[in-house]
Amino acid sequence: MAEARRKFWGWGLESETLDEAGAARIARRVASLTGLDPGPYRAPPAIDEVSLPTPRVSPPAALAALCRSDDYSRASHTYGKSYPDYVRAWARDFAAAPDMVAWPEDEADVVALLDWAGAAGLAVIPYGAGSTVVGGVEAEVGAGYAGTLTIDLTRLDRVLEIDRSSRAARIQGGVLGPALEAQLRPAGLTLRHFPQSFAFSTLGGWIATRSGGHYATLYTHIDEFVESLRTVTPAGVLESRRLPGSGAGPSPDRLMIGSEGSLGIITEAWMRLQDRPTHRASAALRFADFGGAAAALRAVGQAGLYPTNLRLVDSEEARLAGAGDGSFHLAVLAFESADHPVDAWMAHALECMADHGAGFDSDAALRARDPLADAWREAFIRAPYDREGLIAHGLLHDTFETAITWDRFEEFHAGVKAATEAAIVEATGRPGHVTCRFTHVYPDGPAPYFTYHAKPTPGAEIEQWRAIKSAASDALIRAGGTITHHHAVGRDHMPWYEAQRPALFGEALAAAKRALDPDEILNPGVLLPPRRAAAAG
Amino acid sequence: MAEARRKFWGWGLESETLDEAGAARIARRVASLTGLDPGPYRAPPAIDEVSLPTPRVSPPAALAALCRSDDYSRASHTYGKSYPDYVRAWARDFAAAPDMVAWPEDEADVVALLDWAGAAGLAVIPYGAGSTVVGGVEAEVGAGYAGTLTIDLTRLDRVLEIDRSSRAARIQGGVLGPALEAQLRPAGLTLRHFPQSFAFSTLGGWIATRSGGHYATLYTHIDEFVESLRTVTPAGVLESRRLPGSGAGPSPDRLMIGSEGSLGIITEAWMRLQDRPTHRASAALRFADFGGAAAALRAVGQAGLYPTNLRLVDSEEARLAGAGDGSFHLAVLAFESADHPVDAWMAHALECMADHGAGFDSDAALRARDPLADAWREAFIRAPYDREGLIAHGLLHDTFETAITWDRFEEFHAGVKAATEAAIVEATGRPGHVTCRFTHVYPDGPAPYFTYHAKPTPGAEIEQWRAIKSAASDALIRAGGTITHHHAVGRDHMPWYEAQRPALFGEALAAAKRALDPDEILNPGVLLPPRRAAAAG
Repeated sequence: MAEARRKFWGWGLESETLDEAGAARIARRVASLTGLDPGPYRAPPAIDEVSLPTPRVSPPAALAALCRSDDYSRASHTYGKSYPDYVRAWARDFAAAPDMVAWPEDEADVVALLDWAGAAGLAVIPYGAGSTVVGGVEAEVGAGYAGTLTIDLTRLDRVLEIDRSSRAARIQGGVLGPALEAQLRPAGLTLRHFPQSFAFSTLGGWIATRSGGHYATLYTHIDEFVESLRTVTPAGVLESRRLPGSGAGPSPDRLMIGSEGSLGIITEAWMRLQDRPTHRASAALRFADFGGAAAALRAVGQAGLYPTNLRLVDSEEARLAGAGDGSFHLAVLAFESADHPVDAWMAHALECMADHGAGFDSDAALRARDPLADAWREAFIRAPYDREGLIAHGLLHDTFETAITWDRFEEFHAGVKAATEAAIVEATGRPGHVTCRFTHVYPDGPAPYFTYHAKPTPGAEIEQWRAIKSAASDALIRAGGTITHHHAVGRDHMPWYEAQRPALFGEALAAAKRALDPDEILNPGVLLPPRRAAAAG
Repeated sequence: MAEARRKFWGWGLESETLDEAGAARIARRVASLTGLDPGPYRAPPAIDEVSLPTPRVSPPAALAALCRSDDYSRASHTYGKSYPDYVRAWARDFAAAPDMVAWPEDEADVVALLDWAGAAGLAVIPYGAGSTVVGGVEAEVGAGYAGTLTIDLTRLDRVLEIDRSSRAARIQGGVLGPALEAQLRPAGLTLRHFPQSFAFSTLGGWIATRSGGHYATLYTHIDEFVESLRTVTPAGVLESRRLPGSGAGPSPDRLMIGSEGSLGIITEAWMRLQDRPTHRASAALRFADFGGAAAALRAVGQAGLYPTNLRLVDSEEARLAGAGDGSFHLAVLAFESADHPVDAWMAHALECMADHGAGFDSDAALRARDPLADAWREAFIRAPYDREGLIAHGLLHDTFETAITWDRFEEFHAGVKAATEAAIVEATGRPGHVTCRFTHVYPDGPAPYFTYHAKPTPGAEIEQWRAIKSAASDALIRAGGTITHHHAVGRDHMPWYEAQRPALFGEALAAAKRALDPDEILNPGVLLPPRRAAAAG
């Protein structure tokens, strides 16, 4: 039996590809709910339809066994999972493929690969599982390099050590979410970090991109779970000390967390774990008014109750998810604990929500699970699989996410939504469909997540997408938000990241990069403008 | 009536100086509890007993009104509050005084002062309220500088803006703890950050040193409260965007948090606030066995209950604090909330503690306050005031603090305690007294805080202190701890900080410093070895 192979052009395994009927079903459903017209079906690419440029490099003998340059290996590492990635894949355009893909088996291999790349003048693209939606793994990095080597880290896939009493484990950076959890389960532990990309993303990728987990409050960001890091840079290996807390200077880990492969490759991390939860309660709440719902979530978020889920989904997005008929905004509230029943917590949070006008099914709230909450969760997990059905029928589906303090939220939400709606009309010539949910709720503000659908002109998809992306990004940066709350910067967000970042921090970061990656071989163009390409160009 | 003036040689106001009888009372009490002999009384220095070197610099006319070089101004900015600081003050030795002290009134003054310092070749010591116990404000920085300018930031003392709905405020960096809380109180808000130095330390100092608050779990570190920062560096001003969360690259704020005045001067911060708590419960628990007590705190710390206080004080330290007779180890447990009664939380935590062998007065536990907990808290607040009584009678009193994961804690605690005890005998020729408490409890480990008393040889206090400090620091670094959990690095911890810090992170940090402070005028020798002094020496 063949090994389960991932699609080289999109999310998930080849065996999970939607057939024509499946794609049509999804496209028709979304089209009817958004008022858009699906185009004719176009099948996803097959590998023999794709023509790749000849690789410009070949590995030294000692590394040859780790490297491959066959079409599937290169094509499957050409793109992430953004809308323009799908469009280019559907156009059978893999001209941007890396010259070579390497699969190191251990840290020494990573060191050897970086040494080779440095000596051979190659750019290196660190690659987890390619879930980036922001151009984080683009292999076309400009004329300043002799070629591009993508380093796929998924063979560094083991939990090396578990410390039960501190609830921590030493874990290799390339492990995928499910394999990580499977290795922790026998010890009764969990990292409990569930980004939407969980099935096909890696621990090292989560750390490098400041991944946000599924949980809405408190410990959900990967940043908080990092106890120490081991990172290979072109200048050598950095290993931070394993500590529950430290005040010894600026945190070394916080420089690597969010470095997006531009400073080093995270080969190992000691991660803080949690006991597997045994007590649970969830509820779905209905609000007539979006502003009122936001105020309710703010109240719960500021109450010090720390629900595991505290999510607001606007009425249109709930309808799209099959959770409601569009007549109410949906809030999902949940508590869980490995230690104690959470009834007191839930009761108080529901009281708080009711004070702000929430309607809810009080019977459902007393059960462990709520069907509306389940419907939403199911749609959340299915979303990356469904997307190819929309692409196959010429529909644009994209998301962008940000964060903003509460005082500015209402104006921010209205302004960004309106700017995106206007940009869709301007770019595509017809109205699209823009919705919003909160992925995380902080005491000082929410993390709004926007989803939009549009019908671009065939052949002009990327240009139209870029116009919409630019307008939405301009609007959210102008209104004080962040260009990304958890999707990362990559290459797509660079102009707005540079606008948002203090200029002198950019200089400090560039200086740090020169210390760690003096020849600028790591992920050029991500977080920092590519110096070499500029010099060569 | 004269303005309340701070002692130039120690903690607190001049009006709070212990008289001879008060000093004797404290020294006798501590001596009897630790088995040490107090020496004869020596009074603290008076300003006219002190002779300062002639200042080497004078300010340009435009800045003259901000600057002073009188004896009191310079003497009161010569030292922090470490044991060797007290010893040098008692020796009437203020040879290390800065040449000049400046009090900027606004950010433009800070910029102008840095410009002047850069042009005149001066070193700049950013100074909050001088509570450092690690040599963070030493003005003697070597021959590479034409002189030293200490910048006292306490006139930047205002809350500039309050955002009630996000619970955040824009606050100037030089505000002292009590003045900050007084300005927030009318809005019903609190920063709720109470380091032991609260009365005489500043917001900017807390951020620059990664201060740890009084609370034992969850939101207690200043790091977590920073929403955005405004920092003046010699290269210009950095201002980060006000955001509840962001995944846009490595956090710019986390580079400044813990930078100890070596990268810039924090002039403003947006800080996350909390509602003032109205529900409270506290309990004191007694344990026969220290290891068992640690296990109980670990269990509560890992239960997801997030007590505001969860502290373990060993039997000898409890006795010193007047909280118990030394027959039991004391754990202090407390919950508080601005939102909901905390009974369910407390009940479950007590159950958890009882499962681990805790004894407690169940009546007291049901009251809002526990008298044993109050006794400990009172001693905690009094400690910096009492210290001068010990110094006046020739007793060495010092503390050091660290953090370690639970798996290594028992061996770590035993090893560090034994090494410190042995070093005291070796250095002073007689046994001292070493105790331990936990200041913070993380799910993955505690932050142990060691207090010791010894009787050094008169005239050899600093040399003997240094021998003990070195041995204790060697032991805790060897055993895997951090050289500081919340006291910061300063100059005293540099050798162990450099041992602990990944070498390449040191290079990245040095590179960042070159970008922000190219002439290396800011706090030379803190976090990074002083380049200029080396070049000149």
